[in-house]
Amino acid sequence: MTQVAVLAGGVGAARLLRGLVDVVPPEGVTAIVNTGDDMVLHGLAICPDIDTVTYTLGDAIDPERGWGLRDESWHAMEALSHYGGATWFRLGDRDLATHLYRTQRLAEGQGLAAVTAEIAAAWGLALRIVPATEQPLRTMITLAENEGGAAVIGVGVAAGQEISFQDYFVRLQHAVAVSGVRFAGAEAAQPAPGVLAAIAGAEVVVVAPSNPIVSIGPVMAVPGIRDAVAARRDDVVAVSPLVGGKALKGPADRLLRELGHADSVVGVARLYAPFAGTLVIDEADAELAEDVRAAGLRCVVTDTIMRDPAAAAALCEVVLGR
Amino acid sequence: MTQVAVLAGGVGAARLLRGLVDVVPPEGVTAIVNTGDDMVLHGLAICPDIDTVTYTLGDAIDPERGWGLRDESWHAMEALSHYGGATWFRLGDRDLATHLYRTQRLAEGQGLAAVTAEIAAAWGLALRIVPATEQPLRTMITLAENEGGAAVIGVGVAAGQEISFQDYFVRLQHAVAVSGVRFAGAEAAQPAPGVLAAIAGAEVVVVAPSNPIVSIGPVMAVPGIRDAVAARRDDVVAVSPLVGGKALKGPADRLLRELGHADSVVGVARLYAPFAGTLVIDEADAELAEDVRAAGLRCVVTDTIMRDPAAAAALCEVVLGR
Repeated sequence: MTQVAVLAGGVGAARLLRGLVDVVPPEGVTAIVNTGDDMVLHGLAICPDIDTVTYTLGDAIDPERGWGLRDESWHAMEALSHYGGATWFRLGDRDLATHLYRTQRLAEGQGLAAVTAEIAAAWGLALRIVPATEQPLRTMITLAENEGGAAVIGVGVAAGQEISFQDYFVRLQHAVAVSGVRFAGAEAAQPAPGVLAAIAGAEVVVVAPSNPIVSIGPVMAVPGIRDAVAARRDDVVAVSPLVGGKALKGPADRLLRELGHADSVVGVARLYAPFAGTLVIDEADAELAEDVRAAGLRCVVTDTIMRDPAAAAALCEVVLGR
Repeated sequence: MTQVAVLAGGVGAARLLRGLVDVVPPEGVTAIVNTGDDMVLHGLAICPDIDTVTYTLGDAIDPERGWGLRDESWHAMEALSHYGGATWFRLGDRDLATHLYRTQRLAEGQGLAAVTAEIAAAWGLALRIVPATEQPLRTMITLAENEGGAAVIGVGVAAGQEISFQDYFVRLQHAVAVSGVRFAGAEAAQPAPGVLAAIAGAEVVVVAPSNPIVSIGPVMAVPGIRDAVAARRDDVVAVSPLVGGKALKGPADRLLRELGHADSVVGVARLYAPFAGTLVIDEADAELAEDVRAAGLRCVVTDTIMRDPAAAAALCEVVLGR
């Protein structure tokens, strides 16, 4: 059975995985998912990227929002707003159950990998979804000078201030400039059970079209994972999250630019060159293929926009070199 | 303004308080509420008696169940059951918001008294609702020999085993015999801010018609509260939770019997004699009035069944000696 390991963030990775399980047996697929976005809110252990992957593979993700469950109700959030509680991170009533379950199981002493597997099993998923690490690793964002951003979103954020990823991404709607990214806790983190074996045993290691800085970055920051991926460099195929220099969703292009990288597939290629042998780029960026190759990667040009599971499956065939 | 302090458990106390705020200005009423039932479940800080009092005074309690909110939805519990999570303690979607808010505020460093006041304010309540203590105090139940009980509820519980109050009360539906009750953490507990002042400053201190063992017991187990109440003995009026030897709701009669007390107003009178000057009993128990007096309390006979807020108000007029 074809074994594929996928380094994954949220929405883009989830769509790729959704296509992948249509072209290879899902039992051979291991998604190694970013946990840098995780947080504790209202006492609940929330893992946004793991849940986006799980819900998408369970065909239950809300297609418009791109997060949370389809046909969701919001009674708890409405009541929480009545208390003046924090409702900027929207938790639907059914989605809440995922966090309640995870929090209770972690409190009972289960590891995050086991709990994630239990949740995936409840969704009837055959692929393996594994957190990059079970230890707390938190993506922290340092804000840069930003004239309009802070005023627009109406909260007091100051240049130089360090905030959590979800504060940046959801509460501030990433409408602020960034001067630095740090992965707090990375030094003490270890790869979750199954991660290194999945990377070592895969025929292809895929870097999903996720944000290189804040989705793939935290996965690679877990000591041991970057070296394990680099050891498979020849079989590592990354998919660019940028199309025509733009992120399809989220701030990948802006973050690359703000942190001094080229905001194009070439910037992505240079970041990934130490551990990826191939970069798949969109036809819109075909003229940059030579620059990608100059960065030391093979370059494959194809349609990377995953409009639906069929398009995602077609992309996966290319990624797998078929 | 008439100042009244009420030592309170859940449902019975909430109904009394609902009547009380119709006969005295609510601003003068302080409910000092049992926290021995509190627990952390799914990571959430849950205070069942405080919430029952709050929701009842907010005219939002579900009248049939006697707990939780009216017109509640259960989407989170349904989804949690899909995960095989613990759903024996039913948390409605809107009710969840109360626990989410409380948990987040406690995590931010607020005390339980302040958070309880915030929640009461959000419900527009003018009376003061105060936890007996802000420190964890947990009612623990030791199970006695019980032939049928364990089998009936289908879980492995053994005689001699000590379980939490909610395990006993909700999960096992109090269908098991009890050999002991302990208030874990009581030694280190302190009266919450405002408790001693409310007792000292009240014209009347009311002991609500709550379970003497597991609702009033934990309140009195907080060091300082029992002495403060006893110091006001002449102005302390207790209302019997037993009518004709039976609890209107819950296991008060059985617990009294199982722990060696008389399962009647006389048993209640003997338990309360050290700190209460008066016991209000129901007309159904009129023939026991002399035995109550023999235990050293004044005895007032009236209709104690609070069918509706008007009946509760009438009872409160008697309690206040009007």
